[in-house]
Amino acid sequence: MTPPDAAHTPLNRERLIAPGPVEVAPEVLAQLAQPQMHHRAQAGIDKLMEARAGLSQLLGDPYDAVITTSSGTGAFEGALVSTTPPGARVVNAQAGKFSERWGEMASRFGYRTELVARPWGDVLDPDEVASAAQDAHTLLVTHSETSTGALHDLEAIARAAKAQNPDLIIIADCITSYGVAELRPAAWGVDVVVSGSQKGTATPPGLGFVLFSPEVQTRMIQNPERGFYLDMTRELAGQKAGNTPQTPAINLIYALSAALDRLLRVPLEVLWAEQRRKTDALIAAGTALGAPAWAARTSPAVAVLTPPAPLTGRQVAGQLARMGQRALPGQAPHEDTVFRVSTMGYADRYDALGIAGILEDCFAALGASFDRGAAVQAAWQALAD
Amino acid sequence: MTPPDAAHTPLNRERLIAPGPVEVAPEVLAQLAQPQMHHRAQAGIDKLMEARAGLSQLLGDPYDAVITTSSGTGAFEGALVSTTPPGARVVNAQAGKFSERWGEMASRFGYRTELVARPWGDVLDPDEVASAAQDAHTLLVTHSETSTGALHDLEAIARAAKAQNPDLIIIADCITSYGVAELRPAAWGVDVVVSGSQKGTATPPGLGFVLFSPEVQTRMIQNPERGFYLDMTRELAGQKAGNTPQTPAINLIYALSAALDRLLRVPLEVLWAEQRRKTDALIAAGTALGAPAWAARTSPAVAVLTPPAPLTGRQVAGQLARMGQRALPGQAPHEDTVFRVSTMGYADRYDALGIAGILEDCFAALGASFDRGAAVQAAWQALAD
Repeated sequence: MTPPDAAHTPLNRERLIAPGPVEVAPEVLAQLAQPQMHHRAQAGIDKLMEARAGLSQLLGDPYDAVITTSSGTGAFEGALVSTTPPGARVVNAQAGKFSERWGEMASRFGYRTELVARPWGDVLDPDEVASAAQDAHTLLVTHSETSTGALHDLEAIARAAKAQNPDLIIIADCITSYGVAELRPAAWGVDVVVSGSQKGTATPPGLGFVLFSPEVQTRMIQNPERGFYLDMTRELAGQKAGNTPQTPAINLIYALSAALDRLLRVPLEVLWAEQRRKTDALIAAGTALGAPAWAARTSPAVAVLTPPAPLTGRQVAGQLARMGQRALPGQAPHEDTVFRVSTMGYADRYDALGIAGILEDCFAALGASFDRGAAVQAAWQALAD
Repeated sequence: MTPPDAAHTPLNRERLIAPGPVEVAPEVLAQLAQPQMHHRAQAGIDKLMEARAGLSQLLGDPYDAVITTSSGTGAFEGALVSTTPPGARVVNAQAGKFSERWGEMASRFGYRTELVARPWGDVLDPDEVASAAQDAHTLLVTHSETSTGALHDLEAIARAAKAQNPDLIIIADCITSYGVAELRPAAWGVDVVVSGSQKGTATPPGLGFVLFSPEVQTRMIQNPERGFYLDMTRELAGQKAGNTPQTPAINLIYALSAALDRLLRVPLEVLWAEQRRKTDALIAAGTALGAPAWAARTSPAVAVLTPPAPLTGRQVAGQLARMGQRALPGQAPHEDTVFRVSTMGYADRYDALGIAGILEDCFAALGASFDRGAAVQAAWQALAD
């Protein structure tokens, strides 16, 4: 195959197709650029309460939301230290970059930390996790592992773990599953849900979310090791009353509220199904190009695809960047194993179809051998009603 | 075929796929919202000169540009009255809504106006136009007829007319061909090129462009019937010196300059070829859906497609609007004959592929009968390198 004529690439529309930050809708961006709002004015307080209510609605359960001015990692830290007393036994279930981070965090705080580790790309075994968590105070578990594209079976894990240990507090990293994948924390027994603004809620980065079940709120603690800024016990009490103890990124909260309005136009089931469909289309396109998904149980948040040798993840991501398309290679040490493409943000099924075309042109430019049109056709088969 | 499940449509990304106004790039929109600039400040004067130089570069010939604060119709009026003395003989070649407008305009100004008319959708006959223009002072001719999707053979028309009447002034309505279709006015003998900001230059509406050949500038006139605001003789002299006699839409001029920077990243031949390719993809998709192009010689600016009975243009445009996609039906009296879809603005070949998917879903929702995937496949065949 002759390399394609790339003379047109400076005319490409630049797209953010990484698994966060993601494309943001114009009406959301427009919120950021209003005359500077104030978080202590009534309008600012109202907007905080609107956004918090929207976050609960996006969860589908009456959990109470804390909005942090931090990344998702900061929100996770707040969740951990505000529910788990010093020296407690913490189990961390890990099978990728992000879930590994929670184990490091728990160790850093001096918790008696036990790791249930699986190789990257694998799916956690619910029974193994439940058995390890039998005597634990807190279980840390990642729903959608953004580094590998695996969707762990959070329902099975939480049900099995709670069956063995009803007092267990389960903190779920739902950073790329909240508003993206089916998530029913009350029914499944997940006590705390953590996420961040730049993923499923399609808002710029800068906000973290912690959603607490009514039950777990009775068990929240005060301990000197929990720090000051990320004290969720204080934040939750304050935010329930419309008050953020510290200055929040109020422009981002306005943006978040607009983004939630957009997402909540449809039932959660439709939101989840549409995101599933878009990612299935990307995976189908990758498979047609000889780059199937890494994980056996795939997350709807991100297509993590394994390019055929001798192509590497870095080569694919690099070529996409030259085409104006911002995707990502794998995370160290798997930069070359995979590349990662996502439509979590302001991108619809027709954008997913366009991305299938982008992947074809990318692979053609890299000299890969495949049937022209196969990826686009496979993607559209996954997308068309 | 069962109607598709449209529950996801509130999640669609809204697209402007009409033949102007068109999608505008973010960096162009951002120009509009700067602290208010002033057209008499040096920065404003510099920006005017930059934009004028960019307009000449986008034409590919050293014609001098006047930027009007008006629609393209205002620019056309300025071109006519500033080149054509009262009572002169004017020939208007027409085969659609927009070319008809220039005949009305010429009659209104009292010119001895002769119409060379063809039915809508037809292509003008160069010899017929040339023969009618034998004794005329000015020929008005439309390059891309946006109401029918016909691309008239401006080269053949201009060459034939100038061969018969070398003193003829040819004013071309290039409103949807400038920066879109191959256009070589110096070689073809087109003296004045008229366009508007919301088409090929992918800028918001509000600016008109008139580009004058060096030769025609020696024949520009002053006559009391040319009005005041649209006096191109005065505007041209002023703008050459960096001065707009009247207050211009300076924010739009900043935006235009940024939009031109973007377009001029590639040679004109690449710009034209890419736009041709995108529109060919839309026409191929329409053909696969039983909705072929109306015109035999199609413009790259817009796909004007004839839906199969009993579907009407208004039904198709209405369904697209319900899907969040702003296209257009035909213009009166052909609202039901055709619908019109365009990618003239900030939309690349992968967006054109997405629009093929949109057209499939639209036709499926309207109960049309076609092979699922055929339109997407046909579009991608036209697009892939």
